[in-house]
Formats: sequence, C-alpha cells, structure tokens
Amino acid sequence: MEFRIIKKSKKSKARVGLIKTPNGTISTPYFFPVATQATVKTLDSSDLRAIGFDGVLCNTYHLFLRPGSSLIKKHNGLHSFMNFDGVIATDSGGFQVFSLGKGLEDGIGKIVKIFPGSKTNKTKKQQNSFVKISDKGVYFRSHLDGKLFFFTPEKSIKIQEELGSDIAFAFDECSSPLDNFSYTKKAMERTHKWAIRSLNAHKNKKQALFGIVQGGEYKNLRIESAKFIGSLPFDGFGIGGSLGKTKKKMFEILDWTIPLLPQNKPRHLLGIGYLEDIKRAVKKGIDTFDCVYPTRLGRHGFAITEKKIINLKRAKYLQVKQPIDKNCQCFVCRNYSMGYLSHLIRTQEITGMRLLCFHNLWLFKNFMEKIRKEILNGKI
Amino acid sequence: MEFRIIKKSKKSKARVGLIKTPNGTISTPYFFPVATQATVKTLDSSDLRAIGFDGVLCNTYHLFLRPGSSLIKKHNGLHSFMNFDGVIATDSGGFQVFSLGKGLEDGIGKIVKIFPGSKTNKTKKQQNSFVKISDKGVYFRSHLDGKLFFFTPEKSIKIQEELGSDIAFAFDECSSPLDNFSYTKKAMERTHKWAIRSLNAHKNKKQALFGIVQGGEYKNLRIESAKFIGSLPFDGFGIGGSLGKTKKKMFEILDWTIPLLPQNKPRHLLGIGYLEDIKRAVKKGIDTFDCVYPTRLGRHGFAITEKKIINLKRAKYLQVKQPIDKNCQCFVCRNYSMGYLSHLIRTQEITGMRLLCFHNLWLFKNFMEKIRKEILNGKI
Repeated sequence: MEFRIIKKSKKSKARVGLIKTPNGTISTPYFFPVATQATVKTLDSSDLRAIGFDGVLCNTYHLFLRPGSSLIKKHNGLHSFMNFDGVIATDSGGFQVFSLGKGLEDGIGKIVKIFPGSKTNKTKKQQNSFVKISDKGVYFRSHLDGKLFFFTPEKSIKIQEELGSDIAFAFDECSSPLDNFSYTKKAMERTHKWAIRSLNAHKNKKQALFGIVQGGEYKNLRIESAKFIGSLPFDGFGIGGSLGKTKKKMFEILDWTIPLLPQNKPRHLLGIGYLEDIKRAVKKGIDTFDCVYPTRLGRHGFAITEKKIINLKRAKYLQVKQPIDKNCQCFVCRNYSMGYLSHLIRTQEITGMRLLCFHNLWLFKNFMEKIRKEILNGKI
Repeated sequence: MEFRIIKKSKKSKARVGLIKTPNGTISTPYFFPVATQATVKTLDSSDLRAIGFDGVLCNTYHLFLRPGSSLIKKHNGLHSFMNFDGVIATDSGGFQVFSLGKGLEDGIGKIVKIFPGSKTNKTKKQQNSFVKISDKGVYFRSHLDGKLFFFTPEKSIKIQEELGSDIAFAFDECSSPLDNFSYTKKAMERTHKWAIRSLNAHKNKKQALFGIVQGGEYKNLRIESAKFIGSLPFDGFGIGGSLGKTKKKMFEILDWTIPLLPQNKPRHLLGIGYLEDIKRAVKKGIDTFDCVYPTRLGRHGFAITEKKIINLKRAKYLQVKQPIDKNCQCFVCRNYSMGYLSHLIRTQEITGMRLLCFHNLWLFKNFMEKIRKEILNGKI
C-alpha cells in the first residue's frame, strides 16, 4: 500500500491524498460504505460502482461466522466473492468484543439478540459470560447460535488474510465509555501487546495493516496509546474505542492523538458517520471513515440531505411530487418523487429501502468529494 | 388499445401478437411481472426496463388501501407515480374478495394476517364476516386495519381510472375451488351482471377494459360464462376464478372456454405462472399471463432455471463458484456465483433477494421470447 499526500491545508490539519492498493486506489478524505456481510445492505457491487465508490469495509467477525473465511478463501477472497474490483478493508473483529460483551453488560453499543427466536432473553450476568478477555485472547459466543469461539491477534490476522482484504486492522480491545480509568488502561495495554502480536503474525505484504489507538476518553492514555501505536511499523492508524460521552470530547481526543501519529500515514476514524462530524474530523487530520449510518437510515425510511434528515414514513410526504433533493443528480432523485418513495417505505417495500440507501450513499460520496475540493481550493 | 395478431400457429391455438396501448406496446405471448403496490418487489422501474419488460400488472385492492387511488391520480397516475413508461394493467380487486373472504373461510388462497400485531387471530366465523357479497357489491375489511369498505363494479372502474392503467379488468366475484355447483353458478351470474355494470361505468376510452370469465371447474358454467362475457364489447378477456383442483382440469377449462371467446381479442390467464403451465396455456390460445411466482420464489431464496428450481438456502451451494446458469446472460449470472448468492440468502441480505428476483424475471422474460420465436418458426 502506498499513501501519497497531494495537498496539506494551511487553515487546518486537513489533507488530500491517495491510498493505492493492489486492487485499486481511493482518494482521501474517503468514506467507506460498510459491507458487513460482504454486501452493502440492499445494494450490490455494481451499485457501489454506479455511485462511484472505490472502496468498502467488510466485517471480519460476521464473515468469520458466515460464510467463514476459509470458504471465502476458496472463492479467491472477498474481491472475487463479492465481485468488487476496488479497495476492500476489513476491521479486526475487536469491536465485537465490545458490542457482544461489555456493550451488552453496560447497555451500550449495538443491540444484539442473544438467541434469536428465544422468548426469554438472558440476564445481565449471563450476557456478561458471553465474552471472556485475557491477555491471550477473547472467548466469545456467536450471536447467531451461541457457539463458543476463541479469537487472538494471530487468528484475526489469519482470518483477514483469508478474506484477502487490501487493508486489515490489528486486533484490539475496544473498551466501553463506562469503563473506569483503571480498566481502560488495562484494555489499552492489552491492545498494545496485541498490536505487536498482530504485526508479527502479519505475513502477507500485499495487505496493508493498520494499528488501532485506544485509551478511551482519558488524555494521558490516548497520548500514551498514540505514541506507542504510532511508533510501530503499521501502514496506517485507526482511532477506535470509546470516543467519550460528548462530541466535544471526541474532537479533544482527535486533538490529543493525531499530532502523535506519523504525518505520512493515513488515519482512519472508526465507526463515525455524521456529516458534520466527518467534516470536523477531516479538519483535525482524519483521512478515512466508515459507518453504517447512511444505509441504516435508508433502510429505516430516512433520506439524508446536507441540510436535513427526512423521515419518509410521515404521511405528509405522500403528496410530494418533487424528489428528495432537486439538486441531487443521483439515479433516485432523477427518477422518483418523495411521494412514491414515501409510499414504498410506508408499505415496507424493499425497493423503498434500497432506493433510500442508494441516495444516502450518493450523498455521502459527493459530500466527501466536496470536502476534497474544498481542501484543494484552500477553503478548509 | 389495439390487438394485432402477427401469426397464428398451424400446430396449436398459439398465436403471436402485439397489444398497443397509449403508453406502449407488448409483444404476446407476454408475462406481466406483478407490481402489487406499484413496484415489483425488490426491483424498481429501471430494473424492469433493464430486464426488458414492457408491461407490469398492479393490484387495485392494495393501491386503493395504500396510498389510495386519488393520491395516485394527484401524481398523474401510476405511470408517473412509479415512473414506468410502459403498459400498466390493473386487476379489478375481485380476487381479494376471494383471498380475504372465502379463501380464509376455506383455508385456501393467499394467507393474510387479519390484524398484524394482534396476538389472537380471529375465529373462522369472525374471519368470514370480513366479506359480505350481494348483487350490489362487496363489503370487506382492510387486511391492514380492519376498516370497512364497500366495492362495486362502478367503484372498481373508478379506482382503475384514477390509477390510470392502460388495461383495466371488470369487477368479478372469484369463487373458491371448494364452492359447490350452485354457489359457483350464483357467483358467475353475479359476475355477468357486474361485467355489464363495469362496461357501463367505464368512460375512459384510452383505457382498455377486459372482462373476466368465471364458472369454476364446471363445464357448462364455463361455457355459459365464456359465451356471455365473450359477447360483450370488452377489449380483451381474462380467465379467472377457480381453475379446478388439478392441472388436467385447468387445461380442460381452457379447452372449453377459449374457442368461445372472440378470436381477434387478447386472452389473459389470471395468476398462472409455472413455466410448464405457461407454455401449455399458450398452445391453448392464451396471450398474456401475470403471476407473483418468480419474485416470490426469489425473495424466498429460490433461483429458477428452465430445468430446475434451486434452493440457495442449502449450504452445499456456498461452495459453488459457477453462476445460477452459465448460459444465462442476465446481470446476476454474469456477475455473481451461486456461492455468493447462497451466502446472501442464508444471511437474510436483501441484496440476495433482489438479485434472485432479477434473475428469475430475466428467465421469465426470455422464456416468453423463446415461446414467441417458436411460434413464429412453426415449432409450437
């Protein structure tokens, strides 16, 4: 992987660049649509190309469970499996430790049905028993069938190699916003050990490996983590874990962290996807993003524009003959009225979900292009 | 509407023709994909055009309930609402009398949740009270919220005019396969009276109106109905209602009915969609078909080929690198393996449903084209 910085802003820490991988190039700042299970929900690879996306991020944990990374390897890797000839990044699976373990315990993070179909959910204590973290690795149970698995940095790297992504992430422990200083420190120290083990396990030189900075909302931990992870020979860096309880805190964390990371390597902000946050984070020096936000909103009947979020489930939109955004050049806005889209969403038609996901991702893609232009024109 | 017969087979009653409407032309024999709620499930109008469909059939009952035909009129009719510039047919709503009323009583027909969200379903007697048929019209309750409505032939025609379809159907009573001779006769006689009322109510001369032959599985009723409906100045004819309990019976019904219908007008077989039945029905003189079968199968994970139906939920297909059909030229077969499609279906990805619906409809479209060619070449 090669990262080339084309322009650095004089007004902020923003920069425009290129990430070149064996399977394609992305122009940064870039937003990765999330193809959790080897598809961006409701869309296929040709839709992504039609929108203009040159890269997606897939989820190691989900693909490990279904269909399994060895199966994807038999299909010659993710690019061939999902027929996407662009850049594919995979996360490390570490976030699932958070969303399936601590997240459930604290009532934070992604809500996951423990046993789909079971009437009585498990109690807090039982939920907690779904994940057991030690320095060696993590025991967890599949959210699908409760089957027990053991993940280590070495295993995460092996899975990501089998998936054949262009950009892999080192295995990390993603601590909870409710963890205290002492636990967050412990998790960070473990993440640092795992970072070294991830680097040692990583043999495929065609695949880039990104390290992940942890440390929660604690300034001295974030600084320690950024210095340590930043000193390792990663190809790029993710900023992950708890980004604090407020937006203010999140941007403080970026201020503490980014200056300590190598200037010539890309920085990825994990899981952040509001438009206003993306723009501010770019100014702080973030190069790439990923988030399920535009497709999750689309599937739930929300259309995103730069000015507002439109809830198409509301009956008043049935009357509207105009598109979501008359200035939007996307296939959906050129062809369908808000009235029609509202009807499709209100009648639970899959077509409606799909059209909104398409529009929302088109908006994100163009939003990122505008940001790049603004940096190039010296406006950011 | 104009119906032009291009060629009549010498080997069978099959014929090749054109149905010209103000919004487009379809080549017959033709299969209408069903756009129940103004969309073919999982697809949009541009997909239909990409496959090559020049016409769809929408459902009057569903569109009357949501979003309402007056709202669609405000959007300048269905063509504008769903942005489809081809032929649009609408059924009469009569089938819902069957599927919501007698169908539930007899345990036949489409299964409809009476009150979605309610824990206790209504008893048989209560279900039966959902529809009350008299010569004047039909009282029924919405399957969505239980609201009471009254449909008459005049109302069905008015709704279809508001929808702005190119081909409307006369309002009929669709009797059940379990109805005895005496009830089926009564329903047929009512259908005949309603046919005249539908014709009298129908003022929009840009819209074609098709009559529907009823009479269940009873030879003398079918003959009586075909003679009567066939003598009325309809633009075409549907063959509807119970087509008997066996396939043999269905084709007997076509043999009794079709010779009594005007030779120069199109004949539509309502709701039939197995490939082998379509081909046989074409030989009996049927010109057009409609059925949810290809999209329903697609949404449930089944891929259709001319030789077999493939259940992609089965794990063994995960291994397969080949497409559904290596000879199929559809976008799905050119781009994705059965392994990938199986993974998408097994993980309940909407993308998987959509890709299978696309493939299945592509197959149907090409199957109909082959039939047309075979008639033109004197092979059928």
